[in-house]
Amino acid sequence: MCSVNPGHCTLIKYIFLLLIIIHLGLNTAESVWPLPQIFIPSPERYQLKPQSFSFGYRRYLDTKHSCSVLDAAFKRYFSILFPGYSYANLITFSVFTLTISLDRHDCEGYPNQDSSERYKLSVFAGQASLNAETVWGSLRGLETFSQLVYQDDLGSYYINKTEIEDYPQFNYRGILLDTSRHYLPVQAILKTLDAMAYSKFNVFHWHLVDDPSFPYQSHKFPDLSNKGAFHPVTHVYTQSDVRRVISYARMRGIRVLPEFDSPGHTKSWGKGQSELLTPCYRGATPSGTFGPVNPTLPSTYQFMLSLLKEVASVFPDPYIHLGGDEVDFSCWRSNPYIRAFMHKMGFGLDFSKLEAFYIEKIVNITSILRKTSIVWQDVFDYHERRKFLSVVEVWKQGCYLCEVRRVVKAGLRVILASPWYLDQPGPTHNWARYYNVWPLAFKGTEKQKSLVIGGEVCMWGEYVDATNLSPRLWPRASAAAERLWSNERQTSCVERAFPRLQEFRCKLLRRGIQAEPLYVGHCKHEYQSV
Amino acid sequence: MCSVNPGHCTLIKYIFLLLIIIHLGLNTAESVWPLPQIFIPSPERYQLKPQSFSFGYRRYLDTKHSCSVLDAAFKRYFSILFPGYSYANLITFSVFTLTISLDRHDCEGYPNQDSSERYKLSVFAGQASLNAETVWGSLRGLETFSQLVYQDDLGSYYINKTEIEDYPQFNYRGILLDTSRHYLPVQAILKTLDAMAYSKFNVFHWHLVDDPSFPYQSHKFPDLSNKGAFHPVTHVYTQSDVRRVISYARMRGIRVLPEFDSPGHTKSWGKGQSELLTPCYRGATPSGTFGPVNPTLPSTYQFMLSLLKEVASVFPDPYIHLGGDEVDFSCWRSNPYIRAFMHKMGFGLDFSKLEAFYIEKIVNITSILRKTSIVWQDVFDYHERRKFLSVVEVWKQGCYLCEVRRVVKAGLRVILASPWYLDQPGPTHNWARYYNVWPLAFKGTEKQKSLVIGGEVCMWGEYVDATNLSPRLWPRASAAAERLWSNERQTSCVERAFPRLQEFRCKLLRRGIQAEPLYVGHCKHEYQSV
Repeated sequence: MCSVNPGHCTLIKYIFLLLIIIHLGLNTAESVWPLPQIFIPSPERYQLKPQSFSFGYRRYLDTKHSCSVLDAAFKRYFSILFPGYSYANLITFSVFTLTISLDRHDCEGYPNQDSSERYKLSVFAGQASLNAETVWGSLRGLETFSQLVYQDDLGSYYINKTEIEDYPQFNYRGILLDTSRHYLPVQAILKTLDAMAYSKFNVFHWHLVDDPSFPYQSHKFPDLSNKGAFHPVTHVYTQSDVRRVISYARMRGIRVLPEFDSPGHTKSWGKGQSELLTPCYRGATPSGTFGPVNPTLPSTYQFMLSLLKEVASVFPDPYIHLGGDEVDFSCWRSNPYIRAFMHKMGFGLDFSKLEAFYIEKIVNITSILRKTSIVWQDVFDYHERRKFLSVVEVWKQGCYLCEVRRVVKAGLRVILASPWYLDQPGPTHNWARYYNVWPLAFKGTEKQKSLVIGGEVCMWGEYVDATNLSPRLWPRASAAAERLWSNERQTSCVERAFPRLQEFRCKLLRRGIQAEPLYVGHCKHEYQSV
Repeated sequence: MCSVNPGHCTLIKYIFLLLIIIHLGLNTAESVWPLPQIFIPSPERYQLKPQSFSFGYRRYLDTKHSCSVLDAAFKRYFSILFPGYSYANLITFSVFTLTISLDRHDCEGYPNQDSSERYKLSVFAGQASLNAETVWGSLRGLETFSQLVYQDDLGSYYINKTEIEDYPQFNYRGILLDTSRHYLPVQAILKTLDAMAYSKFNVFHWHLVDDPSFPYQSHKFPDLSNKGAFHPVTHVYTQSDVRRVISYARMRGIRVLPEFDSPGHTKSWGKGQSELLTPCYRGATPSGTFGPVNPTLPSTYQFMLSLLKEVASVFPDPYIHLGGDEVDFSCWRSNPYIRAFMHKMGFGLDFSKLEAFYIEKIVNITSILRKTSIVWQDVFDYHERRKFLSVVEVWKQGCYLCEVRRVVKAGLRVILASPWYLDQPGPTHNWARYYNVWPLAFKGTEKQKSLVIGGEVCMWGEYVDATNLSPRLWPRASAAAERLWSNERQTSCVERAFPRLQEFRCKLLRRGIQAEPLYVGHCKHEYQSV
């Protein structure tokens, strides 16, 4: 029935679970995705009515200023709980109240890598209580609460008596969107942030720029997008767009991690910033084409400092992704000035030393700006001096756990992306491929394993834009989400996860997310907007 | 540059074409998809203005009653030509008129297998004339005209002087949608019909029912959908829904071919029609499960006559698809009554004879109802007596042209589906796989080749519903559309087709069709509705 590694899927457990499901109906017992760490359902159920349901703060919060993040979340989740209704909070007599308490009143900040997302949720007669250490944890609890509510055939709303204690397995649970190979309208990004919150993702890795286009509208270097975007007006992200994305993400407990990938993947940068890219040579003369960023000129670092200074101030997250992947050395090799510089620096013919020279300078700039840098695994692989690195993102296929092990043995933190390249179209029933991933299944000490800070779904843009982003992402990304949030022993059985994921996918449809089907079947509310 | 078979992609032709493209801009010269048979573009261009553009009939038509199909098409295409404007036809002074003449005034009927779709379109100073033999041909010409109009950077509309003579290579150009494995809301079907018209498809093959669900609401046998649909109210097609689909398709020159697949693929039928399916046995006792339709009972044929009589009256098309594929013999074999019948009929142990016996009876019923039947290739493959067959749809993978050849050698007509199973997700850049198909590249006489009446894109429903139907279908189905409409020698070069298909895909986005990208790039108007 189940090929499981490293968890177990014993028959007794399975029968017990089936009995619970049959007894309670799938909607009640097994309907939360990703699965909470401790989840004690009960057959006892309570009716909820939109007219007499309310959210409340524990009293001590009332004396402080209100929490805008939670106030907005109450409105969102009320409409999710009771489609067609909106939250007025003018209920005079509440029959069912979800009361929230926070250990820390941290509503004004941004979520970060160390934010606690732990929460405790108890549902009992006529009320529910949600306790969390931070406002971000309370958002996760609200999401769980919303998934516990179900409708019977007559349309009445119910929730079962439930005890939940929950926290994520990994602190970094990201989705990468690529807005350079195709431009994604802001609305498509916001919709993705909505869906991310439903699966408890907490990092939007924004691969903003790359070879094909430079849609980020810099206020210091407006020509980068004026000349490097697909279109300088319709295919750019203005400062206001960026602020909107960051704010929308924050309201959902999601960090925005900007990536400005260099020295490769920068063709579009060259259009608006002359002398940044390396002129390639054919024999003794320039060929007219350009290669990676020119690491030999002081002007390059002045520009990068200035650009990253802007990025550091626009994006509040303490991390910046610096890329560093797939640098093609052939253009550098063709250029006599680069070769002369190599000679002067004693790099011999090893261009990876030149790349290391560049990246180290960029990482240092980032440190000066008080940001921590993340790089793709190439930077780790090809450089001998690794001390200056902090976080390495593993993306290459093959034995990715071998690579994870190498990185943590070097004392660096890891984000794992290799098994979650979802831009590759494939049969949807392959969701299990994204589920059967065990990021910690390598030989290592506890301390080494703690350096694996999480994982990331990558949605590269070669064949993806707003027309197919959602169905290609959902619900397959949700499979990765459970792997990154839930206990791996409790979620090691694909057959057991399948009906719960199907149910979750129906919830996504009900919330307007264009999540594609897993297999033959139907949802009570099909996707209608065509 | 080009691997072409059997057409040619000579350098001179290619350079000539490039010169035209460079001279005229892609929008004008090479922007029609599928490519017309004779296409003479010119650099001379005329401005169009929504305020002074009109459609007109040649005078002799005015004396007859007006043509509702064309009146509706004028409204549709006006909004396509000039997004944001709607057609009032109250223009007092028309600066540019597209005048339509029909050889036959056949506005009241339905398109059929023999309908001419030939048209002639001339665009010259201040006017254009469109002549067609039938109203269906004029719809194809209107589509072509709409693709010739383009906007410059300032937003002005233009059309170039053009001469076109056009007709399809194959009369049957179909798309199959499967509404049994997932229910498709009527709106999703209508949207698909819109997009089909843009690619000049002319048959909607409606695979209405199958094992998982029976969404067709029969007025004679309401229990079939009451008990066999995923939901008897929300997941059915009422008679009014079906009429709406047929009418919507007709207005776009598209036939609706209903499929009621039997004797296999009928699990859902059994829920609402007892004693229709064969009870399977385990040893000497019924196992409680059911297999294919029971071909041994007279009641089966009474029911099928009654059902098909209804189908024949609801669907105006002269053809009905009877399925006949993938019949699993194991249940028949297990049943002692079936075995006794086999013995009595002298079929021995050859269950394909039993299937032939059944299908022949169903084909006869269909003939009595004055409909021509289409069957999947299985029926042809496994039966010795083939005289009673008319049209065979080839669907299996492998050497499908070998199969095509066998069928036409037997004097039967063929629809080719094998190379166009688009429900299989795959890298989008594989559109060329659906383009590089040569349905007539087999050894045979002219007469035999004329028996290949066309081809069909199949969108089976295991992993497809309204969430991903459009991006999975478009623009890959458009590649098949050009193969089925255009001259294969003129369209044999993938590299030459690519920019034109990219441009066509942008047009689909502009028209609200969620067509996925072919590769890195952008459209002036991206898909916005998320």
